[in-house]
Amino acid sequence: MTPLERPAARYFSPEPAQRRVAEALYATIADLPLICPHGHVDPRLFADPNYTFGSPTELLLIPDHYIFRMLYSQGIGLTDLGIPRSDGGETETDHRKIWQIFADYIHLFWGTPTGVWLQDELYYVFGIHEKLTGENAQAIYDQIDEKLRSPQFNPRRMYEDFNIEVLCTTDAATDTLAHHKAIRESGWGGVIRPTFRPDAVVNLDMAGWRQNIDTLSEVSGVDVRDYRSYIQALEGRRAFFKEMGATATDHAALTAYTEILGADEADRIFVRALKGEASAEDAQRFTGHMLTEMARMSSEDGLVMQMHVGSFRNHSPSIFARHGRDMGADIPISSEFTRNLKPLLDRYGTDPNLTLVLFNLDETTYGRELAPLAGVYPSLVLGPPWWFFDSLNGIRRFFDLVMETAGIYNTAGFNDDTRAYPSIPARHDLWRRAACDWVAGLVVRAIVDEDDARQMVHALAYDLAKRTYRL
Amino acid sequence: MTPLERPAARYFSPEPAQRRVAEALYATIADLPLICPHGHVDPRLFADPNYTFGSPTELLLIPDHYIFRMLYSQGIGLTDLGIPRSDGGETETDHRKIWQIFADYIHLFWGTPTGVWLQDELYYVFGIHEKLTGENAQAIYDQIDEKLRSPQFNPRRMYEDFNIEVLCTTDAATDTLAHHKAIRESGWGGVIRPTFRPDAVVNLDMAGWRQNIDTLSEVSGVDVRDYRSYIQALEGRRAFFKEMGATATDHAALTAYTEILGADEADRIFVRALKGEASAEDAQRFTGHMLTEMARMSSEDGLVMQMHVGSFRNHSPSIFARHGRDMGADIPISSEFTRNLKPLLDRYGTDPNLTLVLFNLDETTYGRELAPLAGVYPSLVLGPPWWFFDSLNGIRRFFDLVMETAGIYNTAGFNDDTRAYPSIPARHDLWRRAACDWVAGLVVRAIVDEDDARQMVHALAYDLAKRTYRL
Amino acid sequence: MTPLERPAARYFSPEPAQRRVAEALYATIADLPLICPHGHVDPRLFADPNYTFGSPTELLLIPDHYIFRMLYSQGIGLTDLGIPRSDGGETETDHRKIWQIFADYIHLFWGTPTGVWLQDELYYVFGIHEKLTGENAQAIYDQIDEKLRSPQFNPRRMYEDFNIEVLCTTDAATDTLAHHKAIRESGWGGVIRPTFRPDAVVNLDMAGWRQNIDTLSEVSGVDVRDYRSYIQALEGRRAFFKEMGATATDHAALTAYTEILGADEADRIFVRALKGEASAEDAQRFTGHMLTEMARMSSEDGLVMQMHVGSFRNHSPSIFARHGRDMGADIPISSEFTRNLKPLLDRYGTDPNLTLVLFNLDETTYGRELAPLAGVYPSLVLGPPWWFFDSLNGIRRFFDLVMETAGIYNTAGFNDDTRAYPSIPARHDLWRRAACDWVAGLVVRAIVDEDDARQMVHALAYDLAKRTYRL
Repeated sequence: MTPLERPAARYFSPEPAQRRVAEALYATIADLPLICPHGHVDPRLFADPNYTFGSPTELLLIPDHYIFRMLYSQGIGLTDLGIPRSDGGETETDHRKIWQIFADYIHLFWGTPTGVWLQDELYYVFGIHEKLTGENAQAIYDQIDEKLRSPQFNPRRMYEDFNIEVLCTTDAATDTLAHHKAIRESGWGGVIRPTFRPDAVVNLDMAGWRQNIDTLSEVSGVDVRDYRSYIQALEGRRAFFKEMGATATDHAALTAYTEILGADEADRIFVRALKGEASAEDAQRFTGHMLTEMARMSSEDGLVMQMHVGSFRNHSPSIFARHGRDMGADIPISSEFTRNLKPLLDRYGTDPNLTLVLFNLDETTYGRELAPLAGVYPSLVLGPPWWFFDSLNGIRRFFDLVMETAGIYNTAGFNDDTRAYPSIPARHDLWRRAACDWVAGLVVRAIVDEDDARQMVHALAYDLAKRTYRL
Repeated sequence: MTPLERPAARYFSPEPAQRRVAEALYATIADLPLICPHGHVDPRLFADPNYTFGSPTELLLIPDHYIFRMLYSQGIGLTDLGIPRSDGGETETDHRKIWQIFADYIHLFWGTPTGVWLQDELYYVFGIHEKLTGENAQAIYDQIDEKLRSPQFNPRRMYEDFNIEVLCTTDAATDTLAHHKAIRESGWGGVIRPTFRPDAVVNLDMAGWRQNIDTLSEVSGVDVRDYRSYIQALEGRRAFFKEMGATATDHAALTAYTEILGADEADRIFVRALKGEASAEDAQRFTGHMLTEMARMSSEDGLVMQMHVGSFRNHSPSIFARHGRDMGADIPISSEFTRNLKPLLDRYGTDPNLTLVLFNLDETTYGRELAPLAGVYPSLVLGPPWWFFDSLNGIRRFFDLVMETAGIYNTAGFNDDTRAYPSIPARHDLWRRAACDWVAGLVVRAIVDEDDARQMVHALAYDLAKRTYRL
Repeated sequence: MTPLERPAARYFSPEPAQRRVAEALYATIADLPLICPHGHVDPRLFADPNYTFGSPTELLLIPDHYIFRMLYSQGIGLTDLGIPRSDGGETETDHRKIWQIFADYIHLFWGTPTGVWLQDELYYVFGIHEKLTGENAQAIYDQIDEKLRSPQFNPRRMYEDFNIEVLCTTDAATDTLAHHKAIRESGWGGVIRPTFRPDAVVNLDMAGWRQNIDTLSEVSGVDVRDYRSYIQALEGRRAFFKEMGATATDHAALTAYTEILGADEADRIFVRALKGEASAEDAQRFTGHMLTEMARMSSEDGLVMQMHVGSFRNHSPSIFARHGRDMGADIPISSEFTRNLKPLLDRYGTDPNLTLVLFNLDETTYGRELAPLAGVYPSLVLGPPWWFFDSLNGIRRFFDLVMETAGIYNTAGFNDDTRAYPSIPARHDLWRRAACDWVAGLVVRAIVDEDDARQMVHALAYDLAKRTYRL
């Protein structure tokens, strides 16, 4: 049994001068509330005042695609890890057994963000100061399990313990927002806001699109039968989300391609899609058009627009067939923004009412395209490193590649983008420490002074996210 | 009021051992004269012995697209910053007001090269040892204004104070070089050389190309009516530039695409262009052909050839419509060299009389294509980081990505590439310090010894630029 | 004369805390045997018990394309360096003269991996503790020459001195493996294994393909006249290589493009190629198909499959015409894996019997495509940095970009990939030190503890290569 250490200087440069500055900066922001403007925590956690998380495995392993994809890469079957099957077939149900596998393979996570987030959760959230190993796996399982049954592990209480100021969820355009309604009516003081995500009714080639349009008709009360009624229904839904507290929308696309279709052409494509006759090109053009159209709506209703591009979803047909969507086999592709975003930016890039936050998975675009674009277009802001790059090195590269051209004030601060609720403090802490270390590097090189540095880390830790998302 | 500090170890690694080596290396090169082989300083500064710079805002803000693009990105209008309008319409003329805006938003420049260059100019060139803030903005304006009226702020005198050995300007192929003539005839000892830049008569799709060809006819004395007379006129202009002291040419293109057209095909495209009938493909192929043709001329007349590729110019149509070309909305694109340069290199890449200096805005090409190419073709040399990448991190990445494959002797040393004359010392100092810090990193890792290190920093600071540009 | 120093902390971060950890880690692995699973050492060295290396120039300069390409880039002719001509024409034969040129230009190699490998070879292998310069070049030549004549410089003896555990060569699919046979029959204890490399009979557009097919018929005993007999011959050769100790195959391709042709279509293309009628598209598709087919064979016979992609071979037609293949003018291109590998991965990516090790020359794919792919597909493993990137910075970037997503256990450890036998210890030492420094960086940032760190460096230095290549 090895007692874990959590030195104050965690993640900082080992060089004593830089470390001293980083520690001093960190002390000024460590206790700021957490702004969580984008993520995937289930609103049910807060709607039900007596919500419980289930077993340690249900909470920490089964829903986390970072964890099961890594185990899978070393030959462990997804069903052995309790991942549900699309056909409802058998999958491991012994949660202790799954936990044991994870502990036996803990070395796979050495040096990874998953590794450090998990260490932090166990240490700070669950108070386990022992290193997880194959040997102590069951004993630690017991400790977590016991904690999860205690009143302290109620999501609303954790919200306060985590010092969260606001948390935004991500919700389908057709969602009734029943959980959000319940939260608002409960009288509880936490701030949980929905985010409007219309991908499933926008991307014509997404499985289930046709049924989703029917659902859209139902929930919007608009009979969607052509492009015009479709737009009307979407505008209605946006208004509803806004009423329910939303300040932002979110859009996923394979590429950043945008264009502006004439209303007639948009209608022709939409009607073809309704008949199940849309081509791949139709789908690509329609997505590109709708991104521009959503920018138009944002410029009118003031909802902040987020774009996440560059993920080739469901890359493995065998995983997709057995387990369905979002099961860890999403792989990045290279991205292009200078030409792809031009139609959208030509029309809305200087609109004072539009804030468009960009995320992508191709770091080569940071310095080459994104920072120069954000450094000139008033509407553009860069989101923090996403997904595989939300890590110590990923954040360091983001700062190094973006800030010299865009400055920090054309960036959106941090968002944790997680569905793993208990990992939220660990993720913000990593960002905050990485930001302090980076700014400390500027101080010790006499690029900024300590006064400026304090304002910079405050902005990066808190102000920028709040301002960008109009919270 | 915060007194600024300029520690001796500015920009260096904070690690004491590396810093000591860097400081010692820097001491050996800090006083070397500045070689400025490529830039955009207006030769009028030196032609008129009584030239004055106007107001602080006219000197430091209005001409600097790094500054106004950053302010614009945060929603400040270009007309509020005094940027001239294409239609001659109104724009802010109160220079104190513009200065105030800049000072109020000085935080946008924290951690950016613009921020450090400007701090350095104020500190060293204007002797202002106080940090610029919204509060002291007008007082500092007064101090700069007073200085600008003093005899010390004469460009010729500054040339000597800055310890410049040679400064090359960039001049249109059709320029009469009247200012250069005046400088040469003035008897002043400074060395100002022109550079031949034919883009406006080469790129068929550039606005004004047809009129530029007429001007080319006039200034060359050759009636340009077909491809043959066009080449003759260009060769005549190159000879004239060379006579006037030029040692180099400069060529901008969207991509590095080259090809070799047959004389008949080149003529057909050229004649179509004269009639206003050239297609986009014609323009691309003709630019690619002319790059190769310019390499041929360089191999004959010995003018060093520079290529700057990868900038998508005038990205924002609204800025272009209101304010014209080069107004900050140029955005990089990804570049390709291995295949694009092959036609040129097949013909001239091993020509001992050709030196081709490459610049681009896609850092991914540094290690993947440029260093391997420069590391084998005798004619190829790599220019220093350009534009957005002429920064502390940009230079560090350049060294790390290029030098292991190409070595330092296939690079061209530094050039400041600036139109902001008073920023020249700050830019060279950043490069020199970054070079010393990088070489010091090799010393403390026992990769090179201190003897080699001293020669390396001397080459990087001085010799390589002088040798490459045949100065 | 400068005595060289080889401090214990070579290559490590200068920061004392990190350096201390790195040194301690290095002490635990410095004496581990070398696993050399991929390289280009000639098996003749070991087949002939009395093999001698010839002159210092023959051993160290003439065969090393890193060295002569750099000298060529500065205008030194390849014939002046003794590089053989395709036409058998004259080339420099005075090896002392060539050695003198190299020493006179030693500054070209400052800060390059070639520079440090060579320093290390001279220091540790040849015991020369003086820095090579133009002045002492002939004296050092004498010392090396004398050493090369001593019994200590027998390749088999060096194998033991270098502490090599296993060394794999790379051999054409049509090779008789006569040298390997001789080694096995000699009773010598060293382990030299062949590797099956079928490029010359797979890539239809490679010069000599048609004759290579005839050789394939001969050596395999299968009359190759259609696709079916071709596959049969290849399978026969693989079985023979396996019998002779091979555990792996190696495949070079310009891109990672894969597809699966129907047997009929594969046959039509193959028959066209036999007649000399294959198109460029045929060649590309056939290579893509054969990669998939080789994955199928590997999943059956268990030979580990290596893919090296992204080198544009023989870029300079003049060097190719005078000196032939592999003469230093190979230039990287950008690569794509997410889409290109999908057909192969769809079929074999989860096959427990397939290990596919990927190498490429486009570092942008490390974090964006390769680490996410290796981090999910059980069959995929990432090879160490290749060619231009097998350097201190190249290895650091590889660790930083790959390990957070893939973890270390989806990588293949190190291989030296060299034809320069005496440089093997220097290359492994660079990797091991770089690995220790990187892991030490994780320790001082409290990301992993020292126990985990020791296991990580052991894996990186030894276990991973051995496991991946099934040695």
